[in-house]
Amino acid sequence: MLSLTKETFISYKNIYQDNLLKQTVPFWENYSLDKEYGGYFTCLTANGNVYDTDKFIWLQCRQVWTFSKLYGNFGADKNWLEIATHGADFLENYGRGKDGSWYFALDRKGHPLVQPYNIFSDCFAAMAFGQLSKITGESRYTEIAKTTFQNILERQENPKGKYNKAYPNTRELQNLGLPMILSNLVLELDHILHGEVIEQQLNSVKDKIVNQFYKPEYGIILENVGLNGEISDSFQGRHINPGHGLETLWFLMDIAERQGDSELILKGVDIVISTLEYGWDGKYGGLYYFMDLKGSPPEQLEWSQKLWWPHIEAMIACLKGFYLTRDMRCWEWFVKLHDYTWEHFVDEKYGEWFGYLTREGKVNLELKGGKWKGCFHVPRGLMILSLLMKNLEEYAGNMECKA
Amino acid sequence: MLSLTKETFISYKNIYQDNLLKQTVPFWENYSLDKEYGGYFTCLTANGNVYDTDKFIWLQCRQVWTFSKLYGNFGADKNWLEIATHGADFLENYGRGKDGSWYFALDRKGHPLVQPYNIFSDCFAAMAFGQLSKITGESRYTEIAKTTFQNILERQENPKGKYNKAYPNTRELQNLGLPMILSNLVLELDHILHGEVIEQQLNSVKDKIVNQFYKPEYGIILENVGLNGEISDSFQGRHINPGHGLETLWFLMDIAERQGDSELILKGVDIVISTLEYGWDGKYGGLYYFMDLKGSPPEQLEWSQKLWWPHIEAMIACLKGFYLTRDMRCWEWFVKLHDYTWEHFVDEKYGEWFGYLTREGKVNLELKGGKWKGCFHVPRGLMILSLLMKNLEEYAGNMECKA
Repeated sequence: MLSLTKETFISYKNIYQDNLLKQTVPFWENYSLDKEYGGYFTCLTANGNVYDTDKFIWLQCRQVWTFSKLYGNFGADKNWLEIATHGADFLENYGRGKDGSWYFALDRKGHPLVQPYNIFSDCFAAMAFGQLSKITGESRYTEIAKTTFQNILERQENPKGKYNKAYPNTRELQNLGLPMILSNLVLELDHILHGEVIEQQLNSVKDKIVNQFYKPEYGIILENVGLNGEISDSFQGRHINPGHGLETLWFLMDIAERQGDSELILKGVDIVISTLEYGWDGKYGGLYYFMDLKGSPPEQLEWSQKLWWPHIEAMIACLKGFYLTRDMRCWEWFVKLHDYTWEHFVDEKYGEWFGYLTREGKVNLELKGGKWKGCFHVPRGLMILSLLMKNLEEYAGNMECKA
Repeated sequence: MLSLTKETFISYKNIYQDNLLKQTVPFWENYSLDKEYGGYFTCLTANGNVYDTDKFIWLQCRQVWTFSKLYGNFGADKNWLEIATHGADFLENYGRGKDGSWYFALDRKGHPLVQPYNIFSDCFAAMAFGQLSKITGESRYTEIAKTTFQNILERQENPKGKYNKAYPNTRELQNLGLPMILSNLVLELDHILHGEVIEQQLNSVKDKIVNQFYKPEYGIILENVGLNGEISDSFQGRHINPGHGLETLWFLMDIAERQGDSELILKGVDIVISTLEYGWDGKYGGLYYFMDLKGSPPEQLEWSQKLWWPHIEAMIACLKGFYLTRDMRCWEWFVKLHDYTWEHFVDEKYGEWFGYLTREGKVNLELKGGKWKGCFHVPRGLMILSLLMKNLEEYAGNMECKA
């Protein structure tokens, strides 16, 4: 049995806070602001040089969210508020098409490049403006979050619209992505949405994830299932993304905590553990990016690579699970993930983290930000982990752990 | 100066013929036929087990082409003709939508899974039925090839139709894929199309590739350029695919040979060499899959992996260049590519080749066929290489080479 003292939690808390405030946030403060045209640069090399100036809506929104959250939770630094509104202004001016849907990408000046085919752009926009409305109280921001959320609900049955290439009725599948994001988004918009809308969404999403996407016989969450949750023996149906499953699980534990559903918390912890056992690379360490349910060759060539975000999401899932249950399996996996992550992803030389490693753990792409990696998973993870460590530190005196 | 004797060419010819007829063709003959529902399985493990039964139109068509070509060029084996028509029947029955466009994917029984959004499905269908009409003289097959080709020409300005997600007029780019495939397809349909259509297409395609996609200052062919051939400093504009460039170059040499354009042949050889120098991994050997024109991090996580088809296409480009010019740079690169390829991709235990290696040359996906790898690049390459070696063998007596 490991001995967990107050000092253990303080020491981890300091690691996360330091990395957040001295290594990660300064990186984005220093290199990502486009002072000429507004918005953020997200394509940044290892040492912060801009290598592409396109503006991807997911990442623009996520950075607004991050700096709003920092402002709300880590000291009301005016500079953080300015950075958040700097991105929000750009998004407000250029981000939406005529019908209010959010584009996928803009050029540096804000001209649309890619049509609003991707409903996750809308999800991250609602998340960004929701958080910004929370810290500023600005009704303009609240309104954007609200109408965007409404738009998501209206589009949710057919999110890709005319861009959907699936032929109807041959193999109807539902994808985890949207219920998964909604489970988090609804809580993010707690201060804006009606209580009954929230509860209805949470229950619907919880039901889908637990009863349709989760497969007890495998102990993991699938990415795509049939309309009644049945397994589809196809590339999409067999597709496993352990990091995505783990992120889903801490969203689910947030819902369970809010609803006081202790059964779901315990179940969530069990699935966290079985997902980690399923997704961990026994030979080189780290979590595989993609796997195949039947162990067949996955479709994606990058399947065996180690990406930053699944590891952060896994750490959150473990620490949240430990915080809520004191289950030592969670703590042991947490330490294993922390050690792998700190050894492989963190770049103490230039700040922020590398995002893309080979299976063996070598840096595969020398970047800190790109088309898909921005100011989001790392700072969000560090914020959550340091707050959880702070809570644990406070409880450390009277802690009982389950071996 | 290397000494190239008749025996050298005979020995390579035997290697390719043996690999084709003893290792590659039997693999597909033995494992790929769906005798129950028609068409081919292409998702095959290293030893030939079927791990997915979906039928991807690109690969169905390419296998029809391969067995038709074998029948036409490597002895009129009835079994090959049967295998070709086995796939063609399935395609004829299930492959097209109402307007005659070809779907992207069907399920095992032939029900459409993915809409006809991808014009390359049509290109490979025209290629398949064109070759089959050549060996059988069947007017039904000729008609399918002809109408499909007509359909491609009509769709070529807006190939993705309503599925095109690019916002109009912000950053208009043209993609190499279609002119590149057309440069080969037109020659494949030589026996079907009118002479003037062929010459017009060949000249248009040649002009586009040489004057717009090829960039002399870099010595390489780009994948996406502006409407007047200008370089676009964007992910798409900087995207380099050395193997695709090399495949384009041997298509171009075929046109140059047909038109007796010796200047273009020499130019083609120079670009082959500069592309190989650009795309070769000096540390681990092999050709990178994707690169960035400015050396920035590419968007694709699999950028540094080594794939089978770029290496085969590179070998064809080198040997064709050598055959047409006796330029020893081509021969030296050819040998280097052959050695890398034979050491890393060829699987003499179960036949066919591995397709996907890590940067370091380890097998990354244990498959012989999948959603994108079927019965095509390996047998096509082996057919072309062995025929070229046979020609060289015949000329070996009076050969002068340029050092």
